[in-house]
Amino acid sequence: MSDIVIHCNEEKGQKFIKSVERKHFLFSFVTSYTKTCEIPGITVAGAEPDFLKFTPPADSEFLQYGFCKTIDVIPMTPDGKPTPALLTRAALDFANIPKVVINAGSEIYPKMPFVETNLPFGKNISVEPALERSTVKEAIDFGKMIGRTLASCTNCLVIGESIPGGTTTALAVLKSFGIGARVSSSMPENPESLKNEIVEKALKRSNSKEPYDVIANAGDPMIPFIAGMLSSASEITNVILAGGTQMTAVLALAEAIGYDKDRTALGTTSYIVDDKSANLLEIVKSISDIPVLSINPKLEDSKFSGLRAYSEGFVKEGVGAGGSIIASMLKTGIDSQRLLELIDKEYQRISSSK
Amino acid sequence: MSDIVIHCNEEKGQKFIKSVERKHFLFSFVTSYTKTCEIPGITVAGAEPDFLKFTPPADSEFLQYGFCKTIDVIPMTPDGKPTPALLTRAALDFANIPKVVINAGSEIYPKMPFVETNLPFGKNISVEPALERSTVKEAIDFGKMIGRTLASCTNCLVIGESIPGGTTTALAVLKSFGIGARVSSSMPENPESLKNEIVEKALKRSNSKEPYDVIANAGDPMIPFIAGMLSSASEITNVILAGGTQMTAVLALAEAIGYDKDRTALGTTSYIVDDKSANLLEIVKSISDIPVLSINPKLEDSKFSGLRAYSEGFVKEGVGAGGSIIASMLKTGIDSQRLLELIDKEYQRISSSK
Repeated sequence: MSDIVIHCNEEKGQKFIKSVERKHFLFSFVTSYTKTCEIPGITVAGAEPDFLKFTPPADSEFLQYGFCKTIDVIPMTPDGKPTPALLTRAALDFANIPKVVINAGSEIYPKMPFVETNLPFGKNISVEPALERSTVKEAIDFGKMIGRTLASCTNCLVIGESIPGGTTTALAVLKSFGIGARVSSSMPENPESLKNEIVEKALKRSNSKEPYDVIANAGDPMIPFIAGMLSSASEITNVILAGGTQMTAVLALAEAIGYDKDRTALGTTSYIVDDKSANLLEIVKSISDIPVLSINPKLEDSKFSGLRAYSEGFVKEGVGAGGSIIASMLKTGIDSQRLLELIDKEYQRISSSK
Repeated sequence: MSDIVIHCNEEKGQKFIKSVERKHFLFSFVTSYTKTCEIPGITVAGAEPDFLKFTPPADSEFLQYGFCKTIDVIPMTPDGKPTPALLTRAALDFANIPKVVINAGSEIYPKMPFVETNLPFGKNISVEPALERSTVKEAIDFGKMIGRTLASCTNCLVIGESIPGGTTTALAVLKSFGIGARVSSSMPENPESLKNEIVEKALKRSNSKEPYDVIANAGDPMIPFIAGMLSSASEITNVILAGGTQMTAVLALAEAIGYDKDRTALGTTSYIVDDKSANLLEIVKSISDIPVLSINPKLEDSKFSGLRAYSEGFVKEGVGAGGSIIASMLKTGIDSQRLLELIDKEYQRISSSK
């Protein structure tokens, strides 16, 4: 497994890898929404504000079908940078890892079976609190229920997410907790000053560090829901939080709820770990001593410029791509060279099916 | 496992039991709805037509929480005959078997996370076709997707259902296929002539035996959905269809779709097998050579008259109770005497919490 790099707690990382190698994995994909993403300039995911809310269901459909139903096209920028769901799908399908889509506050339903929670979307944190306190509690409770069920069915539960604008709410939550965080962006020019401006507006409303208050004021529905999942699932089985800086906000809340740190790892791409505008590893270390696993998908060697763009600072991560590649490698032993061939093949397929 | 009785194909039944004993089980509960249940006199499940549609979500909530949220009370007749969900919950929780609730056409959502399919409810087959043909196809496709995912996570997928009025649509489907069926009722005085009258009305509209036509005209959303689940799940793992005569309509459709008969068993209570107004074993034999497993929950020995009523012809089965008890016994080795104590304890708990 030489392609997987262990950061932070090296010993725990080794132990984690040993306990899940060649075992059964289950991928869960949590879709959500925050109105914060509608602030112009905040995210690249989807071109127009109206289009943004279709990204999570479209990614869900792409994972399931290999094409989308809610929209006519596969999420991709006009110049051909594809959704990270492409990496996730290639990795999971090669390893025959089952997928479960969970809606925790997305406004639009995917046209496929999915787990529904009836949680509301998050409000725009620059103008008002994100959620009711009672919704935070409900999201945690529902996350615990689903985490328990899914964890009972696997040796390793991989949790990915899709929430446009989610790095901004994550930043607001981390800062509310007093954590010195800088977060990644899906764009090479990280709109840091815009993000900080939004975060300041949210923090001005409340200086409480009480965890439920923090999430209610500055968070989104994804954070408490996945924190709940992590809490119950890690009591039963191993958990990979598959994502970048958004997952550190989940960790920060999970510290308050409780979870098993010996059964938890964060899994992401090297593009996030290497992102100089962010400080993922420092954030994780300041919260917890869990290991971070990263994988370099070597997309700079791709045949397609849309995929090579990932190595140039675009997209970087999402839809649990990094954690899914790690899971696929741990289950099957596939290396990143062979996986890149599958990713290229998948890109070829969707490009020619247009 | 002397408490489990094998019927029909004895050899396959022995083999099935051997392959799942002490293994991992997963219980899925498919809730659905047909307007056919609103015909006065057709079902006891829920006292009033308006109340009927709350039975599937209330049963789901009871399985999850041990109490209901959608309605104030636990589904029970005024004289204390409880929902079969009580048996299901006691059996599954003792064996630590995870539960997944799936909504395949129920009008009311449970107040908890569940798998949503966005399938429509079935129309009243005495006045119009139950479903569009395209809905039948979609229900099968969605069932296949979910069946594949759940089957990948367990050694034995148990599938239970709740659809008020479902024995009538099952009868209509079986008769449409030309199978000489008599079906059970939740009441000791089975309203056979009323059911037959409704079935005749449905059959008069169409004499096609083409499977999609049959379900579209005379079925309900549960039948094609579970047939789809069975089809994909049995390719991967073992499946127990947990229910009575409704599951034979699923089997009849699954014959046309295809499924692995060496990995499939029907699991039910002895009250269904012994029901003289129905002919479960003959129906199964005329469709397929799969084994039928039955369990006598010995409710005649209960401390409570509401539970003893099951042995006097009331309720008999539902919410996958028989299959859940069988699964619990196969996983843990518990006998029916000990399980009855747990069922009595659960009845005591809900009676004193009123």
